[in-house]
Amino acid sequence: MSTTSEAPAVASDAGRPTAGKLSIVMFSGTADKFIPLGILSQAAAAMGMEVQVFVTGFALRGFTKVRQDLPFAAEFAAMAPALAEGMAAQHVDTWDVMLRQAKELGAEIHACSAMCAVMGLTMADFNDLIDDIVGAASFLQMAEHGETLFI
Amino acid sequence: MSTTSEAPAVASDAGRPTAGKLSIVMFSGTADKFIPLGILSQAAAAMGMEVQVFVTGFALRGFTKVRQDLPFAAEFAAMAPALAEGMAAQHVDTWDVMLRQAKELGAEIHACSAMCAVMGLTMADFNDLIDDIVGAASFLQMAEHGETLFI
Amino acid sequence: MSTTSEAPAVASDAGRPTAGKLSIVMFSGTADKFIPLGILSQAAAAMGMEVQVFVTGFALRGFTKVRQDLPFAAEFAAMAPALAEGMAAQHVDTWDVMLRQAKELGAEIHACSAMCAVMGLTMADFNDLIDDIVGAASFLQMAEHGETLFI
Repeated sequence: MSTTSEAPAVASDAGRPTAGKLSIVMFSGTADKFIPLGILSQAAAAMGMEVQVFVTGFALRGFTKVRQDLPFAAEFAAMAPALAEGMAAQHVDTWDVMLRQAKELGAEIHACSAMCAVMGLTMADFNDLIDDIVGAASFLQMAEHGETLFI
Repeated sequence: MSTTSEAPAVASDAGRPTAGKLSIVMFSGTADKFIPLGILSQAAAAMGMEVQVFVTGFALRGFTKVRQDLPFAAEFAAMAPALAEGMAAQHVDTWDVMLRQAKELGAEIHACSAMCAVMGLTMADFNDLIDDIVGAASFLQMAEHGETLFI
Repeated sequence: MSTTSEAPAVASDAGRPTAGKLSIVMFSGTADKFIPLGILSQAAAAMGMEVQVFVTGFALRGFTKVRQDLPFAAEFAAMAPALAEGMAAQHVDTWDVMLRQAKELGAEIHACSAMCAVMGLTMADFNDLIDDIVGAASFLQMAEHGETLFI
């Protein structure tokens, strides 16, 4: 997007890409919530949208090198096996595969510095899905002028 | 919305309706979360906002012709009866009545194609609250330049 | 940002502060979800963003004068003590302290009128974190043209 002195209105829009931006605060650490994280991130990135994910709280457990067991939402735990079967039968990629595809299309995934400190996690603990560790303020700045979801 | 040559600013706002837009990804399938879905959709539609709802995950169970039991959030299940009593006493409509009112005011409700495939659901399985089955990319496009919530 | 008569597009932006706006629908009443409420509100207010919080559902229980026990997310209840220890060790403020800091920087916290009626709550029941009781339509109007999260 080129801005000129004749187009102050565009300049005021502070870099909003024409294809839009999707930002996601990924807080919930139950296995089911990682599915929409993968689907929405992948779909948005494939559309050419900027995608910014901020991982915090128990969701950080989904991104450690040492695999941790992600519990399923308590209310639907009995339906988890059927859901997994349905996803496999429909050849729906797992959430981490979708997230990796999103990253190949430009998505960025940040870990929350405050919660990393609280949970004793550093970059050395995360797999390569995590790009960096940033503060909430930095993320809020990245998220401006787009759609922002809290999952 | 009528735009004139005297109002270039409106034209620059890229089709955002003056009354705004509320988009909701409805993922959580617990009974309690359907209450804010109804209240926010109805309030937004009554204000003249465009309302787009994208139903996915276990929330799809709330829209089938064959009524399915929606579990209450595990942590607050003991308070569910008191909440239902309070809503009845205050004549607060149930969530599906509020959603129907929102639809009469123009709200649209879409089912997520990927999760419909995974759960083996087609349009024939849904009641008339569901308008159509669309992909995540289509929804993200509808949601652009508005407020978007993940419930 | 200085606006001049040559920049009508800026005028069309209807009062959006240059530093942006963060609005939060606080619905979930589990203790863990109050942490991101505090962190995000405090960070946004410290950045000079307008912050509007709309408290509804079981989250209203976190703002009453008479302290109520907030349950932890069922799936992670076993990890609650370790999380609390980590927060204390890192000197992370509790959510209500962070929210109070946000308020000192201009954040506003509103209680949902419909749910207050359903739960039999009036202003007399709330502590001083709650500024007023408003309807969903009023909140949606406050939230326009910013980032809006549903927690």
